[in-house]
Amino acid sequence: MHFGLFGGAKRGTDDSSGDSQSYTEYVDYVIAAERLGFHSAFSVEHHFTGFGQVSAVLSMLAYIAGRTSRIRIGTAVLVLPWHDPILLAEQASTVDLLSGGRLDLGVGRGYRPNEFHGFDIDPGDEANERYEECLEVLRKSWTTSGRFSHRGKHFAYNDVIVEPTPAQRPHPPIWVGAGSEASIRSAARNGMQLLVDQFGTIDMTCQRVDWYRDEIERNGGVFDPDHVCAARHLTLLHDEDLHTLDAEYDFRLAGIMRLREASRVPGDDRELTVADHAFYDTARANTEDAVIGGAAQDCIVKLKTLEAAGVGQVLMIDPTGGIPRLEHFAETVMPSFS
Amino acid sequence: MHFGLFGGAKRGTDDSSGDSQSYTEYVDYVIAAERLGFHSAFSVEHHFTGFGQVSAVLSMLAYIAGRTSRIRIGTAVLVLPWHDPILLAEQASTVDLLSGGRLDLGVGRGYRPNEFHGFDIDPGDEANERYEECLEVLRKSWTTSGRFSHRGKHFAYNDVIVEPTPAQRPHPPIWVGAGSEASIRSAARNGMQLLVDQFGTIDMTCQRVDWYRDEIERNGGVFDPDHVCAARHLTLLHDEDLHTLDAEYDFRLAGIMRLREASRVPGDDRELTVADHAFYDTARANTEDAVIGGAAQDCIVKLKTLEAAGVGQVLMIDPTGGIPRLEHFAETVMPSFS
Repeated sequence: MHFGLFGGAKRGTDDSSGDSQSYTEYVDYVIAAERLGFHSAFSVEHHFTGFGQVSAVLSMLAYIAGRTSRIRIGTAVLVLPWHDPILLAEQASTVDLLSGGRLDLGVGRGYRPNEFHGFDIDPGDEANERYEECLEVLRKSWTTSGRFSHRGKHFAYNDVIVEPTPAQRPHPPIWVGAGSEASIRSAARNGMQLLVDQFGTIDMTCQRVDWYRDEIERNGGVFDPDHVCAARHLTLLHDEDLHTLDAEYDFRLAGIMRLREASRVPGDDRELTVADHAFYDTARANTEDAVIGGAAQDCIVKLKTLEAAGVGQVLMIDPTGGIPRLEHFAETVMPSFS
Repeated sequence: MHFGLFGGAKRGTDDSSGDSQSYTEYVDYVIAAERLGFHSAFSVEHHFTGFGQVSAVLSMLAYIAGRTSRIRIGTAVLVLPWHDPILLAEQASTVDLLSGGRLDLGVGRGYRPNEFHGFDIDPGDEANERYEECLEVLRKSWTTSGRFSHRGKHFAYNDVIVEPTPAQRPHPPIWVGAGSEASIRSAARNGMQLLVDQFGTIDMTCQRVDWYRDEIERNGGVFDPDHVCAARHLTLLHDEDLHTLDAEYDFRLAGIMRLREASRVPGDDRELTVADHAFYDTARANTEDAVIGGAAQDCIVKLKTLEAAGVGQVLMIDPTGGIPRLEHFAETVMPSFS
């Protein structure tokens, strides 16, 4: 099992001014993770929150590529409906090439109402169409030999060739953030790697991996745990701090609620829907179950359960622990995994 | 007078496979330039040439920012009609922030027929509209306090806020590539810094700077040479190599013709127009005049002429000399300038 980071937003939430310190600290955090043996750093793409989340994720990763040499760099996720697919293919190719083939390209359809509102894109059919068309053009860009043309509903190109060629051939691994059985089975059929969310309980995550494995095997493929990645909140504590675990869960719940609020359209103060509640699961018991928290041994037990289910990589979300917690994790948890 | 680099395409033309070596060599070249005291490295943005020019210029600059610490990084130029202005503002802000305020943002309308053809954008009215609207939204993004909305002909946004804030306030310097008197005077009135092209003779360049200075002074402003940058081909030779200067001019002319061909729509083999000939000036005498070439003293004389006219920075184009020529220039030419 590999361990990575999931974040990028963290420093922005600590420092609402969104100034350079927050970005600098995040970069230092990734550099420390590389030194400590973490496998990857995945960063979000978000827009218009007002608290400085990473927006231009490929620019951020390009910079991090220049400051590191081994750690993989990923998007979790690039929201395809916001992007021109040819420009996106060029950016991803460039980052992959310059990083020496270290890019993991996580993609999604978007889910935050304030982002659809900001970009003036309908979150229903239009988002789906743009997602599908963007993915189609990305794949054409990387698998067509020579020039190609494309005439779709949202994009048209004539006799184009995407340069530079990425280092990973034919293209960086494409990961998809998926949760429902239908979308997970679709990802498996389409050769996409699976990113499982940060909110689901351990049982839910294992169920999702089962769907993915089953669909691959039904189609004659061979399941590979390295193609499954789960995001998890990390609250590894020293023994003398275990009494703070309850407060850490409170903090995590407050964080989920803040994410939920940040996704609202500005000025929208309607009651939350059932879907909002389901996605941003704030049930205390589920959060306690989902979080990798407590002493090292508690964390190891949960991670072993995920590993046995076929999760090849866990991406850690940790808005409070900083580099000392990464060091603690590398020292006490990592050695239990090959 | 400051000296910078203009390029990015260079390694691609040396190596038509567009593989990682070409990008790696370019990055090493910029790192060497920083060490030698060069002030900046400006990179082109081009698409669909088939020989690996830099396409995702801000991703490239983000990576270079991670590998350097002092040298300014610039675009020459970002072609606005290809871009979504909000995504572009986010990318530029991110690169500026992560580089510690080292970004220079050169912008243009585009001129290569094959790029308009590839992006399926009309090179006439549509390109102008997109350029103007993109520039308007970029400026709003960086000068509006809080959220704003925009409804234009090509783009619409609701209640958006561009994050992160760039390090340079209110935004990175905006440079415009301009050649005609009307466009240069317009740049001066609009607070944009001036990038003068690589093809014009020394007299033509001085004339262009005069128009810029005159328009600033007419409007009550104070002319600043640091706001004027000229691109120049560099062919500094050691005394024992001076007999190769003629061959270097031949090489330069062949390079201009190759650029001209690369800008054609694939399959188009029509005769060149007067405008093509004017832009890609291949008259031998004009090329010899425009190039900063010969022994160090010859280069110094031409550079002093430009400096006296008000050019504050010269960006060197040198597809053949590599790091040794940068070292030669730093040793023999730079000391004559403060």
